Amino acid sequence: MSKKKVRIIQYGLGPIGLETARLALNKSTLEIVGAVDIAQDMVGKDLGKILGFEESMGITVTDNLDELLSGTEADIVIHTAGSRIKNIYTQLEEIIEAGLNIVSSSEELLFPSAENKGLAEKLDTKAMEQGVTVLGTGVNPGFIMDALPLYLTGVCQDVKTIKVERIVDAGTRRYPLQKKVGAGLTPEQFRTMVSEKMLGHVGLAESLQFIAHYLGLSFDSVEETINPVIAEYPVKTAYFDLKKGDVLGVKHIVNGIKENETIVNLDLRMYVGADDPHDAIYINGTPNIRLRIDGGVAGDQATAAILVNSIYDVMRAQPGLVTVKDLPAPHFCQ
Amino acid sequence: MSKKKVRIIQYGLGPIGLETARLALNKSTLEIVGAVDIAQDMVGKDLGKILGFEESMGITVTDNLDELLSGTEADIVIHTAGSRIKNIYTQLEEIIEAGLNIVSSSEELLFPSAENKGLAEKLDTKAMEQGVTVLGTGVNPGFIMDALPLYLTGVCQDVKTIKVERIVDAGTRRYPLQKKVGAGLTPEQFRTMVSEKMLGHVGLAESLQFIAHYLGLSFDSVEETINPVIAEYPVKTAYFDLKKGDVLGVKHIVNGIKENETIVNLDLRMYVGADDPHDAIYINGTPNIRLRIDGGVAGDQATAAILVNSIYDVMRAQPGLVTVKDLPAPHFCQ
Repeated sequence: MSKKKVRIIQYGLGPIGLETARLALNKSTLEIVGAVDIAQDMVGKDLGKILGFEESMGITVTDNLDELLSGTEADIVIHTAGSRIKNIYTQLEEIIEAGLNIVSSSEELLFPSAENKGLAEKLDTKAMEQGVTVLGTGVNPGFIMDALPLYLTGVCQDVKTIKVERIVDAGTRRYPLQKKVGAGLTPEQFRTMVSEKMLGHVGLAESLQFIAHYLGLSFDSVEETINPVIAEYPVKTAYFDLKKGDVLGVKHIVNGIKENETIVNLDLRMYVGADDPHDAIYINGTPNIRLRIDGGVAGDQATAAILVNSIYDVMRAQPGLVTVKDLPAPHFCQ
Repeated sequence: MSKKKVRIIQYGLGPIGLETARLALNKSTLEIVGAVDIAQDMVGKDLGKILGFEESMGITVTDNLDELLSGTEADIVIHTAGSRIKNIYTQLEEIIEAGLNIVSSSEELLFPSAENKGLAEKLDTKAMEQGVTVLGTGVNPGFIMDALPLYLTGVCQDVKTIKVERIVDAGTRRYPLQKKVGAGLTPEQFRTMVSEKMLGHVGLAESLQFIAHYLGLSFDSVEETINPVIAEYPVKTAYFDLKKGDVLGVKHIVNGIKENETIVNLDLRMYVGADDPHDAIYINGTPNIRLRIDGGVAGDQATAAILVNSIYDVMRAQPGLVTVKDLPAPHFCQ
């Protein structure tokens, strides 16, 4: 292609950020021009070295976006530096004010909740002023438990209930994820962490509100429960040796209820030793739809992919804070 | 909602058109203001009567769009009056010149082939001149064998091959569909009809080109085969009593081939007595995706639904002849 390359700053060099950087480097139409992280063991290092390449890339990781931008022109930031809007707000604001588009893995940014409404509106206003687009996306939220079910309703004449089930075998995943789902905790430790909001999947409530918004549903109430999945027999992973009674992971459920009936049920289970991992979407409507993805859509790989595959549509989109429903559905880009 | 209703003309009153009309009548934000069909047994009749209502709707079916528009204002036409662009071109042109948007079930309009390129470009130019949007959509093509697989690639870092399989039990469908797939023919009659282009699924080749276009694939060759599915034992439906050796239906396959490998395989089988009807999408990539919809997405119901659910996005879209990939993915609209 003779098109001008899209110039990217990779903001956040955790596992997802490194994966998106690696992926962007493989695309002939994308170019990484800068990398930002606050981790002091990364600042000053070459991105190539951090990615494990033999050669330097000539891109030095900085913790100072302002300084980076004084010498570098860019088009878009891949932002993978946090889940909670309130924690990343000043980062996003700085990026927007620099006139850059954003595609972010922030789970809360998919569809900002009532609690985050004020900050989201400020981001939207600033993005419109600067003529840039800001999108939150990923595989969950952003795809499997919200946008894909919503798309399936596009072939429905009527929708009565939606149930989405995602069962992830955390035992096959990286150590931080096994830890994040609570593997190895006692049930008491698990419950304490839940009460401190240290456990549970960020974004599941957002997925529910996203579906409700686009389908025009209003709930009488929303139920959210986060419970441990307990080992019924010993389970071993590469990182954990779990005995009967230990926590294997998390069962996080969000229900949208209307007239005492659950009309939207999002059921996410991530635990080590999960049998038959899969994603499933059941729409009770006209017609009924019973969809199943064997093995499920792999979280980290898929999230990195959808972030990078969304870049072109974000670049073309109307300015403002948009949702994945405002843009054409993404597809793999060469 | 206090929004102004979208004013619809239903153009074509075959099974799909009657279904879209019925569906549009159920939406509080849509309003049918006219109905067009060339069938002389419908012209002059009230749409309500044709739909089987006791009361008249005050909408008289006409075969003259021009006359209809002289007394009626409308926003969009639901066009369900043909598959082949060359057969419907003058209809579409007349609608566009009247300044109306179009959502059409024309299979070829999903992604006009090389053969239809000239006509498609003329429609695109005229639509831009008039500031209206023209979209071809449906469940197949438009969803299950093209747009949905393409959307799934959005979570892929890499795509090697795509296989889509759709197995429809025609025995559970209306008589015209059973007839359309060739049920009850002898294998010789079937082959004659294939050679006369009277049999096979219009739009399958378009689905392949659609996928290839958006994924940036180029094929060395495209193979298309249309074969009969033959009864191995007697099969009875509400309409047919088939004996061993009779045709049960059609097996239509399109392959996109590169370096002697099939990289995209679309496999559509529609026949009476099909065991285990389903839709399945297999993406060989990073990650792999194995998706299955048990029972499949019901064709006519789903096509009517997606036509009506696409109305709002067509109304908001940029002018021109667009594809389903130019618009946000549709969802059920109240």
